[in-house]
Amino acid sequence: MAEQPAIVLVRPQLGENIGKAARAMLNFGLTDLRLVAPRDGWPNPAAGPAAAGADVVLERARVYETTADAVAECALVFATTVRKRGDTKPVVGPDEAAEQIHGLAGKSAILFGPERSGLDAADVSLARTILTVPINPEFGSLNLAQAVILCAYEWSRAKDLVQPPKTDALPPAPQEELDGLIAHLDRLLSQKNYFLPEERAEASRRTLRNVLTSANWNHLEVRTMRGIFSTLENPPRGERRR
Amino acid sequence: MAEQPAIVLVRPQLGENIGKAARAMLNFGLTDLRLVAPRDGWPNPAAGPAAAGADVVLERARVYETTADAVAECALVFATTVRKRGDTKPVVGPDEAAEQIHGLAGKSAILFGPERSGLDAADVSLARTILTVPINPEFGSLNLAQAVILCAYEWSRAKDLVQPPKTDALPPAPQEELDGLIAHLDRLLSQKNYFLPEERAEASRRTLRNVLTSANWNHLEVRTMRGIFSTLENPPRGERRR
Repeated sequence: MAEQPAIVLVRPQLGENIGKAARAMLNFGLTDLRLVAPRDGWPNPAAGPAAAGADVVLERARVYETTADAVAECALVFATTVRKRGDTKPVVGPDEAAEQIHGLAGKSAILFGPERSGLDAADVSLARTILTVPINPEFGSLNLAQAVILCAYEWSRAKDLVQPPKTDALPPAPQEELDGLIAHLDRLLSQKNYFLPEERAEASRRTLRNVLTSANWNHLEVRTMRGIFSTLENPPRGERRR
Repeated sequence: MAEQPAIVLVRPQLGENIGKAARAMLNFGLTDLRLVAPRDGWPNPAAGPAAAGADVVLERARVYETTADAVAECALVFATTVRKRGDTKPVVGPDEAAEQIHGLAGKSAILFGPERSGLDAADVSLARTILTVPINPEFGSLNLAQAVILCAYEWSRAKDLVQPPKTDALPPAPQEELDGLIAHLDRLLSQKNYFLPEERAEASRRTLRNVLTSANWNHLEVRTMRGIFSTLENPPRGERRR
């Protein structure tokens, strides 16, 4: 599982909005809040009431002098901007950003600009990727906490959807290997009269195949099982050489 | 393209929150706001400033006395609740709700309860489906406007992804047809003293509504059921003409 992204508020103006952002974050399990040069200093008495109980986020918040300091250790930085400005950077929505964050081994950060002006060009230049919420073009009026909650929501949503990385997983064994395994076990069981009486045999064999097929073993696992069956049908190992 | 869903605020308390909900809606292109018995009446002077320019939504808002009135023509009604309560109704997130709305030929509605208490059981019983935002279980503190914006965002998002509607399936019957069916059956049952003793009546009626709502019948099916109820309440067919 990837680390959760840092939410970086760059030069936020109102303590109330910092509190609301913290609340939005915690609603979806985010707790890493970073503040770059908050206008009214930090802590800010207006933040607590607006956080509506998300005090843990405020208490852990870290303050930085520059945006670069705030994201120094991050491998992937997103800059939220409402408008595109002929960007040369890739532009993603909150959904794709969330997927990228979950796919990352390292730390990520999402930058949010001051309430009135948004991120400046220097802040944006720190980011690898632009994050834009696709909004009504005739009424773009997303406030800071709303932008944060949409990003947090998508992160939380993608977390549930995320699968364990598949790099280690081997594909299932080829069918012929599985068939060999089944035949092997069938032989052993036949010797023990497992498939008698005759009229039950077909159903029992189907059950056997279903069970082994559902195991979805890869070729290494099938090989291991073959070894086990061989062991079972042969005399005890120590006695073979006698 | 499906119609956009109505956003139904049931007994909202603060005008400010109505305004914020309107702003959240318009950010993602939703404009059909309906208010059920707003506590402080309507219009409310606190709504406008909080709408931050989404006045068009407030101006078009319609006010209803009951939740049933507000969703009378809707074929698909969602009830937003934070917690599951052993529901018998299907539960979806904002993403799946948005998909269902886009796949529907008719009108849909999403119900949001009063700020403090949320929807009551009678409101929920009007809905076919529960809409729950999957939220941090240790800190569920989603306010009204936040819940609205997440639903509006997903609706907007799904609009871009939407596939042509599946033309073969009939949509669910409009809510008022369902109401007629429920009233019909209620009458029959009342004649049989089904709802006695009195203190059980409300719960029995809610159960009745939930059962018939979950059937998800289209208008042909509702009509068939009406015919069945009529048959039941009248003398045997062969005997009527005597």
